[in-house]
Amino acid sequence: MGVIEAKLASRGLLLPAPMQLPPGVVLPFPWVRVHGRRVLLSGHGPQSPDGSIPPLRGKLGQDVLTSEGYMLARLAGLSMLASLKRTLGELDRVTTWLRVFGMVNSAPAFAEQPAVINGFTELIVDLWGEAAGQHSRSAVGMAALPFGIPVEIEAEVEIDGDAR
Amino acid sequence: MGVIEAKLASRGLLLPAPMQLPPGVVLPFPWVRVHGRRVLLSGHGPQSPDGSIPPLRGKLGQDVLTSEGYMLARLAGLSMLASLKRTLGELDRVTTWLRVFGMVNSAPAFAEQPAVINGFTELIVDLWGEAAGQHSRSAVGMAALPFGIPVEIEAEVEIDGDAR
Amino acid sequence: MGVIEAKLASRGLLLPAPMQLPPGVVLPFPWVRVHGRRVLLSGHGPQSPDGSIPPLRGKLGQDVLTSEGYMLARLAGLSMLASLKRTLGELDRVTTWLRVFGMVNSAPAFAEQPAVINGFTELIVDLWGEAAGQHSRSAVGMAALPFGIPVEIEAEVEIDGDAR
Repeated sequence: MGVIEAKLASRGLLLPAPMQLPPGVVLPFPWVRVHGRRVLLSGHGPQSPDGSIPPLRGKLGQDVLTSEGYMLARLAGLSMLASLKRTLGELDRVTTWLRVFGMVNSAPAFAEQPAVINGFTELIVDLWGEAAGQHSRSAVGMAALPFGIPVEIEAEVEIDGDAR
Repeated sequence: MGVIEAKLASRGLLLPAPMQLPPGVVLPFPWVRVHGRRVLLSGHGPQSPDGSIPPLRGKLGQDVLTSEGYMLARLAGLSMLASLKRTLGELDRVTTWLRVFGMVNSAPAFAEQPAVINGFTELIVDLWGEAAGQHSRSAVGMAALPFGIPVEIEAEVEIDGDAR
Repeated sequence: MGVIEAKLASRGLLLPAPMQLPPGVVLPFPWVRVHGRRVLLSGHGPQSPDGSIPPLRGKLGQDVLTSEGYMLARLAGLSMLASLKRTLGELDRVTTWLRVFGMVNSAPAFAEQPAVINGFTELIVDLWGEAAGQHSRSAVGMAALPFGIPVEIEAEVEIDGDAR
């Protein structure tokens, strides 16, 4: 077991099963695009451990509390890590976090997007440490997100240069 | 004629003329930023073949049907290919699609952004094939877009290393 | 004094002090992520010279005029330059602007996002010139932004290859 997975286990965190999409939904793109050492991550929403989309849907500032949004952003992070593990084989191959774009499904007056996306950022910095885990970040309010999910996060990371 | 343009022709698809902006609008940036092998594409909306912005404007979930949005995302793709051809000379120079950020002008309850942006993704994968054409993707709901366009798409691709 | 800072001085432009966050706000990420020659800039909003967030808040098309938004986008640019200077030591190290993602807090019917983000783009092209300063750009409407700021801008630039 790698270093990152050992940390996940020690914190009692589970990586979810592959995304279970609602019936009829086709997503003709990969969750992870690897090109050389660059790894581009599609927008990930929260997942339950069985891979389903959690039932809590809607907008921050209207349907979802900031504290709930924080937990959903953390679940979106675990969803992203599960995608990385399935694609790379080993999470330790991720050597550098670069960019995080945090999207919060927001009622017009909601202004606490950073407090929501901190659920993602604090997970990543906890697992990778400050040097490798820190990332540029925007945390902003969207008018709507697919399936009514409250949070979606896109990112770019770098992996080691080994050919595998 | 290159491979990609031959495919476009065989499917009866036309690349639009340069964007005709509404009177008084100044856009002080290029549609395509080439730096080494990285090519960064500004947000492209749908265009009619003559370069004008199609008259169908407004929000998905309110003014525009999902099936119409799909066609507009496809037209945004053709707009982007036209910009690439004007900048690179030859579409075959694009060797890898990397990242696609699909923005859908959305009423608050609209949640089918992926089905809209599939109009773009399916065009690219049809033309470049699965290996080169696949891309990381987010498809998300914006509160508003310039000129009231229903769809805008930003992307990054890579080109071959030849100096030209 | 470097070339870019001399230009700033000749135009009477001041770089703001470090961001003063509202009480209780924690932002666990850096404003600038440097990795090799790539520099990824977190979403920056407008700042007053003392580092505080300017009092003009809310949405374009409702609370803020387009001409005011233009000035706020320019202030977001100065905020970004201040972050770059603090991180890099010298603004002249930025050799190439690559990507700008301009986010405008927008009422549903507002459609002049490009005219707002031009306040940023015209500043950068004025300072760096057309060759180095041009960038791919999207200028789009968000449902909400942190602290109710009217404009937030994310970017990527490249720096020279010197180890320092």
